Amino acid sequence: MSIGVGLIGTGFMGKCHALAWTSVRAVFGDVPQIRLAHLGEASDELATRRASEFGFARGSGDWRAVIADPEVDVVSITTPNKFHREMAVAALQAGKHVWCEKPMAAKFEDAEAMTAAAKASGKAAVLGYNYIQSPAIRHIRTLLDEGAIGAVNHIRLEMDEDFLADPDAPFQQRHEAINGYGALDDFGVHPLSLVKVLFGRVQSVVCEQAKPHATRNTPQGPRAVEVWDIASALFRLESGISGMLAIDRAAWGRKGRIQLQIFGSRGTIVFDQERFNEFQLFLTSDRPTEQGFRTILAAPLHEPFGHFHPGAGHGMGFNELKVIECRELIRAMEGKPAHVIDFADGLEIERTVHALARSSDEKRWVEVRQGRRS
Amino acid sequence: MSIGVGLIGTGFMGKCHALAWTSVRAVFGDVPQIRLAHLGEASDELATRRASEFGFARGSGDWRAVIADPEVDVVSITTPNKFHREMAVAALQAGKHVWCEKPMAAKFEDAEAMTAAAKASGKAAVLGYNYIQSPAIRHIRTLLDEGAIGAVNHIRLEMDEDFLADPDAPFQQRHEAINGYGALDDFGVHPLSLVKVLFGRVQSVVCEQAKPHATRNTPQGPRAVEVWDIASALFRLESGISGMLAIDRAAWGRKGRIQLQIFGSRGTIVFDQERFNEFQLFLTSDRPTEQGFRTILAAPLHEPFGHFHPGAGHGMGFNELKVIECRELIRAMEGKPAHVIDFADGLEIERTVHALARSSDEKRWVEVRQGRRS
Amino acid sequence: MSIGVGLIGTGFMGKCHALAWTSVRAVFGDVPQIRLAHLGEASDELATRRASEFGFARGSGDWRAVIADPEVDVVSITTPNKFHREMAVAALQAGKHVWCEKPMAAKFEDAEAMTAAAKASGKAAVLGYNYIQSPAIRHIRTLLDEGAIGAVNHIRLEMDEDFLADPDAPFQQRHEAINGYGALDDFGVHPLSLVKVLFGRVQSVVCEQAKPHATRNTPQGPRAVEVWDIASALFRLESGISGMLAIDRAAWGRKGRIQLQIFGSRGTIVFDQERFNEFQLFLTSDRPTEQGFRTILAAPLHEPFGHFHPGAGHGMGFNELKVIECRELIRAMEGKPAHVIDFADGLEIERTVHALARSSDEKRWVEVRQGRRS
Amino acid sequence: MSIGVGLIGTGFMGKCHALAWTSVRAVFGDVPQIRLAHLGEASDELATRRASEFGFARGSGDWRAVIADPEVDVVSITTPNKFHREMAVAALQAGKHVWCEKPMAAKFEDAEAMTAAAKASGKAAVLGYNYIQSPAIRHIRTLLDEGAIGAVNHIRLEMDEDFLADPDAPFQQRHEAINGYGALDDFGVHPLSLVKVLFGRVQSVVCEQAKPHATRNTPQGPRAVEVWDIASALFRLESGISGMLAIDRAAWGRKGRIQLQIFGSRGTIVFDQERFNEFQLFLTSDRPTEQGFRTILAAPLHEPFGHFHPGAGHGMGFNELKVIECRELIRAMEGKPAHVIDFADGLEIERTVHALARSSDEKRWVEVRQGRRS
Repeated sequence: MSIGVGLIGTGFMGKCHALAWTSVRAVFGDVPQIRLAHLGEASDELATRRASEFGFARGSGDWRAVIADPEVDVVSITTPNKFHREMAVAALQAGKHVWCEKPMAAKFEDAEAMTAAAKASGKAAVLGYNYIQSPAIRHIRTLLDEGAIGAVNHIRLEMDEDFLADPDAPFQQRHEAINGYGALDDFGVHPLSLVKVLFGRVQSVVCEQAKPHATRNTPQGPRAVEVWDIASALFRLESGISGMLAIDRAAWGRKGRIQLQIFGSRGTIVFDQERFNEFQLFLTSDRPTEQGFRTILAAPLHEPFGHFHPGAGHGMGFNELKVIECRELIRAMEGKPAHVIDFADGLEIERTVHALARSSDEKRWVEVRQGRRS
Repeated sequence: MSIGVGLIGTGFMGKCHALAWTSVRAVFGDVPQIRLAHLGEASDELATRRASEFGFARGSGDWRAVIADPEVDVVSITTPNKFHREMAVAALQAGKHVWCEKPMAAKFEDAEAMTAAAKASGKAAVLGYNYIQSPAIRHIRTLLDEGAIGAVNHIRLEMDEDFLADPDAPFQQRHEAINGYGALDDFGVHPLSLVKVLFGRVQSVVCEQAKPHATRNTPQGPRAVEVWDIASALFRLESGISGMLAIDRAAWGRKGRIQLQIFGSRGTIVFDQERFNEFQLFLTSDRPTEQGFRTILAAPLHEPFGHFHPGAGHGMGFNELKVIECRELIRAMEGKPAHVIDFADGLEIERTVHALARSSDEKRWVEVRQGRRS
Repeated sequence: MSIGVGLIGTGFMGKCHALAWTSVRAVFGDVPQIRLAHLGEASDELATRRASEFGFARGSGDWRAVIADPEVDVVSITTPNKFHREMAVAALQAGKHVWCEKPMAAKFEDAEAMTAAAKASGKAAVLGYNYIQSPAIRHIRTLLDEGAIGAVNHIRLEMDEDFLADPDAPFQQRHEAINGYGALDDFGVHPLSLVKVLFGRVQSVVCEQAKPHATRNTPQGPRAVEVWDIASALFRLESGISGMLAIDRAAWGRKGRIQLQIFGSRGTIVFDQERFNEFQLFLTSDRPTEQGFRTILAAPLHEPFGHFHPGAGHGMGFNELKVIECRELIRAMEGKPAHVIDFADGLEIERTVHALARSSDEKRWVEVRQGRRS
Repeated sequence: MSIGVGLIGTGFMGKCHALAWTSVRAVFGDVPQIRLAHLGEASDELATRRASEFGFARGSGDWRAVIADPEVDVVSITTPNKFHREMAVAALQAGKHVWCEKPMAAKFEDAEAMTAAAKASGKAAVLGYNYIQSPAIRHIRTLLDEGAIGAVNHIRLEMDEDFLADPDAPFQQRHEAINGYGALDDFGVHPLSLVKVLFGRVQSVVCEQAKPHATRNTPQGPRAVEVWDIASALFRLESGISGMLAIDRAAWGRKGRIQLQIFGSRGTIVFDQERFNEFQLFLTSDRPTEQGFRTILAAPLHEPFGHFHPGAGHGMGFNELKVIECRELIRAMEGKPAHVIDFADGLEIERTVHALARSSDEKRWVEVRQGRRS
């Protein structure tokens, strides 16, 4: 038995998928042979070149050829998200498993259609929320399940980068409203994926969005920025936990920060994606004179770290999270329980995103169940 | 010329005031002689004992005697805040300067009355917001004034401690609603004092309060906790800056954390009171290959650090912030420009606190100008 | 053109080599096709199984078959170091390039023989000193070359792990003197590889070794530990720089720490392998009021980070350092300038190790040039 | 009963002593009344001015008048160390207790004479090694005594500042050999005081000194620097523990760093004076999946923190360490057990300093007992 892989798109995430597919069997051992079957790009020429670089058997300028290829069992979709619906639905309808990058789609109805197609197909349909895969996050989930920090009563999440922080950078396509809300859907989905995996559903939200730079330069002069690079929100989970969420694409000095603070009745957990090979834990069960936040390095005891290195202190890389995700996808393809955000979970995240946007527009608290924009 | 000091209250903050008065002249040199004239406590016996310990000439069991004493020029009020109004107004009406601990008062009308009395008296009336006094915070203000990080577009503040985190701790008086909202007025005023000093007025707020522990034990069985130990909020400043505020008295492992994140168009500043002898600065003017957050240690170049130590790396203590505050109070008494939160500034902070509480009650955005509870 | 790869050994480092060979072309693009030709293990059965897992065309229970295979252009040697000499010399004599894990060999004459064979063969002969490959370390070298911190006057290196810290762990083979000195040759070579790359040759050393646990349990009772798990040393470089070196395999809590402190006349650099996606830099050219250590995250501006991720904050993993090393090896195979520790460089490192051991035995300063044990 | 205080010298440390004397009773409560009796400075005029600033009853231009004053029970000596012997011996012979700043004296025979005078007098004779007083260090001692980290097998100490780092700073008096060795006696005594208090006596040492800047500018041109700003050493304690010591007065970016790493068979402790309100602790008794270094904030549970603040997170300042030292001095004056470095202990430290210097001169290991220079 083996798995035939199709890959559409060869940007950063396309390369990341290709590396994951090439490494997953050597890393984990317990997965089938992987055949890199067919790569799709914008032109035959580019597709052929990338196929050679990434080790795929062939390349096509038409993504439909990838999906139609009988050698292909699963399709990695790493194109811009405006293409996600069409490609994912087509692949699922062609009987292929799908591994699609986040965010799911620009519009809620697209996400709904994708989820429906996944359900109808019976195939694995998994989204690329790789931050949930790190050994630290997975161990944090174990700790929460065990009640290590007691009952959680409050959480705070911040996701910050600075790639849109420069006021002198020119107007880009991503500053147009047609591409979404801005930070909310581009970024917000990541911390929300952690909320989903660690704490469950969001019930109500109040959000405010902000524009650090109201206009940006074009060759024709200044043009109004139509999206928001900053979003901040309060929320309540269905479980009753209160929370805060901050998202900023214009936060100078922050490069890939996703800080998570989890406060419980018996302790506190802190995590930051910029140092995702470690996390912090405060426990009231420690002797009072020596209580303090422990900085715990990811280690073989934290699944599945040991498949990468035999010892702690030899940190994993961002790309390796994708290898873990790939293995979980394969488990989903095999019908086994898998630690993934599938399309149905992803739809929940999208629902929350749209509720946040609506709350910001209407300057009021919004219930997520009614939060979808009409 | 010399200054005669009266002190009412000898708990933690009373001792802190006493130490500040004893040290201020040796530290700064340029202040008058300080006479520790009269100390007030709950009984003559206790007052006399503390007067001896703290080096005061005499002690009285009646605070009115302290205020009436012609040897007293300025009165330190460090009693529980329900006494602040009566004592401060009496002292001001007796022609004394007043140095009153925060928070100003439990009720907004008390704060108004205190402010009116201060205005009528023409005397210095200063609140004990000592966190604004650290060399790091003062230098951050200088950097903001200079535009070192460009135009500020977003700020986040968190103030967390854990003294009410233990679910097994019994019901206390502070869990009764009569003492205020909970974390909001007890704690929230500190980060708001930093907002005041660094950024100006808050325009609108949306807040949610939470109770990590809904009931607490009494000898008669569980009793409902009437106040909120957690508050979280979004806000807009009058200047247009968007912000977030988190306050938690039940955050295990946080001991005196006041984290401040300031995002600007040319850089970012981060500060944490638990390590208040340092702050972090990211500047886009650094060469791109070596941009990063600098950890800057408070140093003689940061006023008024040099009055305490000739070199950086020899950290200041919390109590020494009070010495700086004392010197600023003396400047205010002398009619000079002073870096203080006076009663009028404090009233603004109280106004914001009440607006936050109202927003939480009514689950909606509230304008601070209309935010006072009726 | 393509490269045929042979791999001998499939433990941690064998897997790491396999992953590097599979990824290097997708990551860097500018390298030839890689053919995973032949894998050697202890038995045909194991070799065949691992060949399947790692994607090699065939496997053999005899390592000489790997070397003899005309499909093989380069041989990865990842077996225990007592086999290094025999395998490396054989491979070089068979006209293959060699990529051999560190440390080079237990005895100095073995390292000499390997170096001679490399020289005679004219083939690339590269050692697995991957810590020199991280973008942070490579950028630090650039900074030093530029004189960013002026003239370096003092350095300190510490390498600490805790895998031999437990006093209750039983006696192992590695506690026998036949396997070397202990921490010195097992660990010391890593910081010495950084010294080599960043600063050049060591001139003189004084070293002391220590045994944290003098005996260890065997089924027959306690047995004396014959090696030293701690070594500490002072040294002088040929350039005149003074330095300190600490090595400890029994340092509880340290997991993969290699701390490097570099003091110069215009600044300071600090690096720690446990957080190798960042480094710290202090520059006197910063404005005095804002001088501080910058924490700089590895970024696309630091070669070759950008081949892995388009943005900083998405950390690289330990295994990915091997991908960089692999690309440098390929450059060496192509006769291009390459950033590697080759056998000749490795011999210098071994010479220093033996001088350190001699200094410890004889309790005196030793010149490295005369440092080889007879 | 009360204590009459004499103070000689009013530089940084003089002010620090004055502040300690003023605060000690208010802070600790259980000490006698303090009378600031007599202050000595270089001239009557300066002495009178400082006496007024610091709150002393009178000032004299002749230090002998301070010592002779019957109102004076104890003399704080904070003058340059070349005066220490004469003043301390005179004060002790006059029947006064002595509190003398470190280092004890430039020459070993001076330190011997001081120790002899102290012994003959029967008075308290205490040195100003304030770093041993911090609650963190005191709690670390408790942990070591308890065996919390098992048997200590290795320690490392680093003390670094940068006040002599600038190569362009002119030649100063402190660059003359007449003032001592350089960093060794100026700085080295501090980490050695920690060794003394935590681990006991040093048995043997090997040391190397270095000059980061061989010459410095004078108005007459470059002049050779006669002292060493860097010293590095290996040592063995009498208890058998191996250790490393680094001292650097030219380490850019280090401001008051005294890093201490203590490795034991059951855990590790790390402390840094630049953040002396915290320390780090790794314990093997923690559950393996959650082992990590705890960052523990100094708290009321750590003696005598609670005398300064009722809660952790409200950091103490450097000057407050002197208040603790002052209280311990008073205990010594009262004949009670006291946590101090007295003259006899100080002599041991000096002996080690001279052994280190000798080792550096002679480029060999030196036994401390024979380490004194002739």
